[in-house]
Amino acid sequence: MTSTPNPSAGPAAPVRRIRRLPDRETVDRFALHELLDAELVGHLAVVAGGVPVVVPMGYARVGEHVVLHGSTGGGFALRAASTRTPVAFAVTSLDGLVYARSLFDSSMNYRSATVQGVLEPVPDDEADAALLALSERLMPGRAAEVRGMRRKEVAATRVLRLALDDVVMKQRSGGPSEEPDDGEDHAAWAGVVPLVRRWAAPIASGLTPPGTPVPESVRALTTAQSPPATLDEASEPAA
Amino acid sequence: MTSTPNPSAGPAAPVRRIRRLPDRETVDRFALHELLDAELVGHLAVVAGGVPVVVPMGYARVGEHVVLHGSTGGGFALRAASTRTPVAFAVTSLDGLVYARSLFDSSMNYRSATVQGVLEPVPDDEADAALLALSERLMPGRAAEVRGMRRKEVAATRVLRLALDDVVMKQRSGGPSEEPDDGEDHAAWAGVVPLVRRWAAPIASGLTPPGTPVPESVRALTTAQSPPATLDEASEPAA
Repeated sequence: MTSTPNPSAGPAAPVRRIRRLPDRETVDRFALHELLDAELVGHLAVVAGGVPVVVPMGYARVGEHVVLHGSTGGGFALRAASTRTPVAFAVTSLDGLVYARSLFDSSMNYRSATVQGVLEPVPDDEADAALLALSERLMPGRAAEVRGMRRKEVAATRVLRLALDDVVMKQRSGGPSEEPDDGEDHAAWAGVVPLVRRWAAPIASGLTPPGTPVPESVRALTTAQSPPATLDEASEPAA
Repeated sequence: MTSTPNPSAGPAAPVRRIRRLPDRETVDRFALHELLDAELVGHLAVVAGGVPVVVPMGYARVGEHVVLHGSTGGGFALRAASTRTPVAFAVTSLDGLVYARSLFDSSMNYRSATVQGVLEPVPDDEADAALLALSERLMPGRAAEVRGMRRKEVAATRVLRLALDDVVMKQRSGGPSEEPDDGEDHAAWAGVVPLVRRWAAPIASGLTPPGTPVPESVRALTTAQSPPATLDEASEPAA
């Protein structure tokens, strides 16, 4: 399997310089935003004591930044921000498995974006808006359904951002690589199995009175998604 | 939202020392294997030129290692292995959104594992088995359906592994934190919206003859999954 995500970007190379598979780098801003807006969690890497550390973090894209947040009590990202330590933040979507007619040509469809830079605190006069934007991205409509943030909650929240200035995006999409004269047995099935994510049925908390309606924000989240295709609809040749 | 994945692990802290939220660290080996066996892509971080670099990579757990692979032509992981550069490899599953009765207490359910160590080449006499194990994890049953690896394909493939010796696992599960006397309006719905992944209907490649049956490996992948719960089944109070 030669094309599991990104086996070939070298750490010694500047991130914009892709040594191999240059067709997998895109500079399409729209595609970048689409990826960042579809995912909810990225992986933040920093150097600490000379060794790499990587942790998952929830995020949202707000304009040309990704916004992260942490509490004031401590925190990986906060420390990197306060010391202006360079960070890398990667967001990846695994989109499917590519079944070729050999293991060697089998692959994964994916999109990934890696942002390099320095985390900076969102200025105080923009922090409320950034926090609301983060909330709206992760749980659309929820902010309007719950009480406002209390003063001490605001004080305990730090909002950080990373500019989308130095970004590498890579992707693989479509079916397996195949040619009529590639020597493989074309009578055998080859193709792609897409991977999709779905919100499942909400589960009420223990203190929620039985019969309490699911709020509109949750209903919208779970009903907006189209039903997944089933196997019975499958195996139409790709265009 | 105080509990997006892992906002609080400090880079200056040894990875086994969790400064806050100690209840989110588990040392349950079974849970670690379960997470690693459910996911397909992790994020590998290294230090290059003093700055962090992070890339997604397909992987499989084989015993007490994670196995990665790259081609011999170049590669991020290969270089780290050849120079015995310390790496960190993180695998995260986002399991759901936690709708509390305030934004501040809203959260995400997730499981994450971060492995620190040094990548090492799988010894030649174990490489075939490791590659097969990787294949079986990513595409169970596929190896038996396709031709064997050609000599030049084997020669072009390097298999690397990272021991599961230095691992931190964190997780959040269950409903929102709530107490009868927490001062929130308990008449309002709170709960969890689980996030699930599903294999969608396979799409045949352009050279696959129309009507070619989907192979057993693909059929097993897509039929093994139970149908997702629907909103109509929702809102039963959590146990």
